[in-house]
Amino acid sequence: MKIAILAPIAWRTPPLKYGPWEQVAANITEGLIKKGMKVTLFATGNSQTKAELRYISKTAYAEDPSLDPKVWECLHISMAMEQAKEFDIIHNHFDFLPLTYSGLIKTPMLTTIHGFSSEKIIPVYKKYNKKNAYVSISNSDRSPELDYIATVYNGIDKSQFTYNANPKNYLLFFGRIHPDKGTWESIQIAKQAGKKLIISGLIQDENYFEKKVKPFINDEDIVYLGNSGPKQRDKLLGEALALLHPISFDEPFGLSVAEAMLCGTPVIAFNRGSMPELIKHGNTGFLVKNIEEAVEAINNISSLKREDCHQWALQNFSLERMVDDYLDVYQHLIK
Amino acid sequence: MKIAILAPIAWRTPPLKYGPWEQVAANITEGLIKKGMKVTLFATGNSQTKAELRYISKTAYAEDPSLDPKVWECLHISMAMEQAKEFDIIHNHFDFLPLTYSGLIKTPMLTTIHGFSSEKIIPVYKKYNKKNAYVSISNSDRSPELDYIATVYNGIDKSQFTYNANPKNYLLFFGRIHPDKGTWESIQIAKQAGKKLIISGLIQDENYFEKKVKPFINDEDIVYLGNSGPKQRDKLLGEALALLHPISFDEPFGLSVAEAMLCGTPVIAFNRGSMPELIKHGNTGFLVKNIEEAVEAINNISSLKREDCHQWALQNFSLERMVDDYLDVYQHLIK
Repeated sequence: MKIAILAPIAWRTPPLKYGPWEQVAANITEGLIKKGMKVTLFATGNSQTKAELRYISKTAYAEDPSLDPKVWECLHISMAMEQAKEFDIIHNHFDFLPLTYSGLIKTPMLTTIHGFSSEKIIPVYKKYNKKNAYVSISNSDRSPELDYIATVYNGIDKSQFTYNANPKNYLLFFGRIHPDKGTWESIQIAKQAGKKLIISGLIQDENYFEKKVKPFINDEDIVYLGNSGPKQRDKLLGEALALLHPISFDEPFGLSVAEAMLCGTPVIAFNRGSMPELIKHGNTGFLVKNIEEAVEAINNISSLKREDCHQWALQNFSLERMVDDYLDVYQHLIK
Repeated sequence: MKIAILAPIAWRTPPLKYGPWEQVAANITEGLIKKGMKVTLFATGNSQTKAELRYISKTAYAEDPSLDPKVWECLHISMAMEQAKEFDIIHNHFDFLPLTYSGLIKTPMLTTIHGFSSEKIIPVYKKYNKKNAYVSISNSDRSPELDYIATVYNGIDKSQFTYNANPKNYLLFFGRIHPDKGTWESIQIAKQAGKKLIISGLIQDENYFEKKVKPFINDEDIVYLGNSGPKQRDKLLGEALALLHPISFDEPFGLSVAEAMLCGTPVIAFNRGSMPELIKHGNTGFLVKNIEEAVEAINNISSLKREDCHQWALQNFSLERMVDDYLDVYQHLIK
């Protein structure tokens, strides 16, 4: 099977820092190569891959202000489309623009919808609904106006996470410091449960941090460590008694939730978005409604087995599982 | 010959007010229909035409903030491309994005480059240089990096302009109030020549108007009339002794220069951009280097025949001439 992976070019693939869509495109590409597939990656020229790399833009437009995004996006996409005949399938990670070329090629195209940046982009997905196959990254992230061929959860590289059977006695908030993610709620939960809370993440909302988070930081029971790299992430997630995830938005997929469970750490999350798909309630964590229920859940945390969390994440959110799921979808489409 | 005209959708076609590219697309469409051609116009749904109108966006995105420009641009273009087989030729007025679909269709595409919004867009034109045929709107507006099949000057609807053999005794500045257009220079020329100057145009640069134009306005020898509609434009251009056009940029095509000559009014212009193509020096106006030379030219203005100006504009800048020129190019491409 000859597979083309069409990555975005906002960042290189894989990204050096931020770039979640490029990261998923990289994970799929390298996972397919490991399976012995013939893969061609369309990405920036400075991307790194074991697949065959094809590019028109040497660098990423988010890293090079001399590049006009619209110009290089359409050059990048059209280059891939003009070579469509060489492939059995094109797997698109580049949002809606490639769809508008798909009526002019014969190769089937699969599009992973990594999220809807705005309701305004739905008309493109609607127009190409029949011609294209869409994959959602969780069942909760589906638009009722579109047809989907499958949900494929984002897969984690398990070599970066260590199972830890013997945690320390702290709770963890891990993610962007932003009202959406519930940093303030996590502090209230920890205080009411009488537990230490470690906070790690990028400050995305400076005003929120100053007003709702910083006043509680005392380096004793409420500790802020800044952003964490992969090693510290592994340690923080694995040593936590539980991850707190009291979100106030319908998160399409919570990567840190899956990562925590892979380390053996159960998750206490507000029950919305993709959370009921990620967490097996009463087994790998608790789905709760509010701060009070979260505090109660912490008192019951010892009833959960960390090994169950680990196994659940391995089975459902590993890179290998993601790649196998996509291969199934490719096979189905080529038939 | 089955012709598709691909208009932009920033504005309806023809535009109600501003919208120069949509205006040219409308002029060509209606001119071709008059010649008995079969024309399909791809434009907004509220456009008005005697051709067959096809659309996906009912309204123009510059007039409707609920429409995302990128979304509706690519939907509009891909709709036309998916119907390419029905046409002998596609004439693109929509800048660079349609080029990136042209490698996927068999119908020849002609692109009028109405101007380069930025150097950053040239890579797209370069990539599709061989596959596509480009038309420049003046020889001076050509990029040395591209190949062109022809220059076709924008054509004027002559029913909107009246030849006037007996002008009044004033000079005219007609166009955007902006340093590019030389409003301040026009005032200096008029003052030094001892002539009245009428200024008409939209204030595009408010700061420039306040500092360099307004202090001279006295409602006697320097008069500002604001923006003019078609009727006042016809009267102002026709009754002027000469049009002043002391530009400080390489203007790709000066519409008011052609319109003034059509009314019989000679033009005194700084010699740059498309001016040497528009003005027949010493016959329909004077090409000058600076304010001093412009003043000298005014003293010689009676040596020019207004009938010559009129005939020159009729022959070179009429709508009929533009349509005939484009038909020649279409024929050449279809062969």
